[in-house]
Amino acid sequence: MENFVFHNPTKLVFGKGMVEKIGEYLKKDGIKKVLLLYGSGSIKKNGVYEKVLRSLIENGIEKVEVSGIRPNPVLSKVHEAISVAREHHVEAILAVGGGSVVDSAKAVAAGFYYEGDIWDAFIGKYNVKKALPLYVILTMSATGTEMNGNGVVTNDKTQEKFYFSSKHVYPVVSIVDPTTQYSLPANQVVYGAIDAISHVMEYYFDVARSDLIDRIDEGIIKTLIETTEIILKEPEDYEARANFCLATTLALNGLTGLGTTGGDWSSHELEHAISALNPEVAHGAGLAVVFPAWMVYVKNKISDKLVSFGKNILGMNGEVSPEEVIRNLKSWYKKIGAPITLKELGFEKSDIDKLTAIANKHAPFGTVIEVKEEDIKKIYEIAYE
Amino acid sequence: MENFVFHNPTKLVFGKGMVEKIGEYLKKDGIKKVLLLYGSGSIKKNGVYEKVLRSLIENGIEKVEVSGIRPNPVLSKVHEAISVAREHHVEAILAVGGGSVVDSAKAVAAGFYYEGDIWDAFIGKYNVKKALPLYVILTMSATGTEMNGNGVVTNDKTQEKFYFSSKHVYPVVSIVDPTTQYSLPANQVVYGAIDAISHVMEYYFDVARSDLIDRIDEGIIKTLIETTEIILKEPEDYEARANFCLATTLALNGLTGLGTTGGDWSSHELEHAISALNPEVAHGAGLAVVFPAWMVYVKNKISDKLVSFGKNILGMNGEVSPEEVIRNLKSWYKKIGAPITLKELGFEKSDIDKLTAIANKHAPFGTVIEVKEEDIKKIYEIAYE
Repeated sequence: MENFVFHNPTKLVFGKGMVEKIGEYLKKDGIKKVLLLYGSGSIKKNGVYEKVLRSLIENGIEKVEVSGIRPNPVLSKVHEAISVAREHHVEAILAVGGGSVVDSAKAVAAGFYYEGDIWDAFIGKYNVKKALPLYVILTMSATGTEMNGNGVVTNDKTQEKFYFSSKHVYPVVSIVDPTTQYSLPANQVVYGAIDAISHVMEYYFDVARSDLIDRIDEGIIKTLIETTEIILKEPEDYEARANFCLATTLALNGLTGLGTTGGDWSSHELEHAISALNPEVAHGAGLAVVFPAWMVYVKNKISDKLVSFGKNILGMNGEVSPEEVIRNLKSWYKKIGAPITLKELGFEKSDIDKLTAIANKHAPFGTVIEVKEEDIKKIYEIAYE
Repeated sequence: MENFVFHNPTKLVFGKGMVEKIGEYLKKDGIKKVLLLYGSGSIKKNGVYEKVLRSLIENGIEKVEVSGIRPNPVLSKVHEAISVAREHHVEAILAVGGGSVVDSAKAVAAGFYYEGDIWDAFIGKYNVKKALPLYVILTMSATGTEMNGNGVVTNDKTQEKFYFSSKHVYPVVSIVDPTTQYSLPANQVVYGAIDAISHVMEYYFDVARSDLIDRIDEGIIKTLIETTEIILKEPEDYEARANFCLATTLALNGLTGLGTTGGDWSSHELEHAISALNPEVAHGAGLAVVFPAWMVYVKNKISDKLVSFGKNILGMNGEVSPEEVIRNLKSWYKKIGAPITLKELGFEKSDIDKLTAIANKHAPFGTVIEVKEEDIKKIYEIAYE
């Protein structure tokens, strides 16, 4: 087990009927005006928007809105929101939505106090020193952003999809009400599950390990697999939905990374190139394609771990081979409706060079193996069909 | 799954060589003078005291000391430390030791700003409003106090062993260096393990449940069982020691209670009477005796959970009966050298009435069943021999 510092100051407010509490939390913290950030308007259909507005009004909190954040959120939208936030002198950001909205909100919160372009935080030119306090109402569980200090944004000028991290952008309060997710389309559940499973796997396959955290990882992934199957059949099964939501939060709030060297993250690097080249590809869909391909490429280095994965998570018995485990994971992805090849995502063989070029900007990466340009290309080739 | 609010602001600093960092953390927070609180002096034998002093000096931090905190810590010592802290105008408490030292430190931190007797916080007469910041160097992993807002102290005038909770007494920073625990006597490891296992069990057997948290609970207890056995043979096995330490912290930092109604806690109530009547009894020893007796008494209400416990934690196969699971748990306690009857703890049959009277002060308690006077007596009778 590696040394670590764990510090997660976010207050997680979880359960039925919690959305309505947002105004009280803001008021208690002395906040009188927020920037309300949301996406394409699904929060207006599922009633969350109305609940939030009522709670703000009841607690005497003003709001100014920026909406239209889309999946794979873009920097230009972050710039727009920073301008609005400054113009109206808001005291906090209230993000209502999924990972894209919350990640954008983190960039807005940090960008508010920064004179340069907040993209500098993504490319290592600026170490965030201060941010507006961030409050979150999560309406799609997947990325874990509601309880960590990371944000991913795509620079729409350069097509680069990068992330930044700062202790200043941990949400102060994150509200997760599983019932608000009953109306999510099936593919968002599927991609959310794969995203969260992939977060845990990035740590699970890290070179440093601990029996305790391995067991916790296995419990989280097993729960995600079971609950995804239930939710796809019974979208309003509260217990399944609640376990799913909590599992996605714990997948990336620091817990699963304790004692690792920080996780491998090669598959995430490889995926970011995919959804940067084609922003229509959901992050979870890209991960479903690329993570098993990475596993195939490094299987000799992680064979013990793959066998444990098969036995303790997938419930495989007897003689278990690493190859079989990867096949079973892919079969499960396929079963729940995820793509498992680049081809299914609409890429041509000739795109592999483009993907390689984009991913190579961050290379070398990974802890299991140091992934370089030639490895990147080979992994995309494995992922192709 | 029940609704919950999870908020744990403690920074956990974990690993080899971390003790020496204490001065830096204090300095970064602007603290110039601390009350250094410790126990019987074992920290002078294992080198921790010297490392702490050096780190304080290097960072220009003054200290005033109060030592002699003993297991099952007493209120009179807390009063003494509050006086010293006030007299010397310290800005923080630095607790170096195990659960008793840290729990006392929490009472001192809260008592510093309270004009009345801080015992009021234990008996529900005072809701803590403010406390000195608390820094911890944990030298014995067991109670989980390094990452929560609870403290247990015995009132040496009334023999009442009560606890208090406050968000204001979460440690700001807790340092856990597993190597500082290499020299702990075997019985402290055993009682620490049983204490931590019991914390998880109080939640595991709660009436509300979640598959996810059940799996995390099972992973923590399984790890505690495995690592205890390794540590008893190889006290300097770093991986076992580190997994053990982290498991005890996660056992009671809020994680294992997510989605429960708050845990059952009957066994803790029953144990507190035991170590209040005889302060020589270690908390973990009392729990080893009383928890299985409680299980026997309520087994029809928790039979499914007992079977899961047997299968997923103790590795039992085939037809598993709840009785067999309790027997196996007791056998394991016996195997690692813990007492499993009140008789072994030195109590007479005639003490059962005294124990019942003490425990009854907090009755009724529990969620699985509402434990009342007659139940208390029957459980102690089961525990007797």
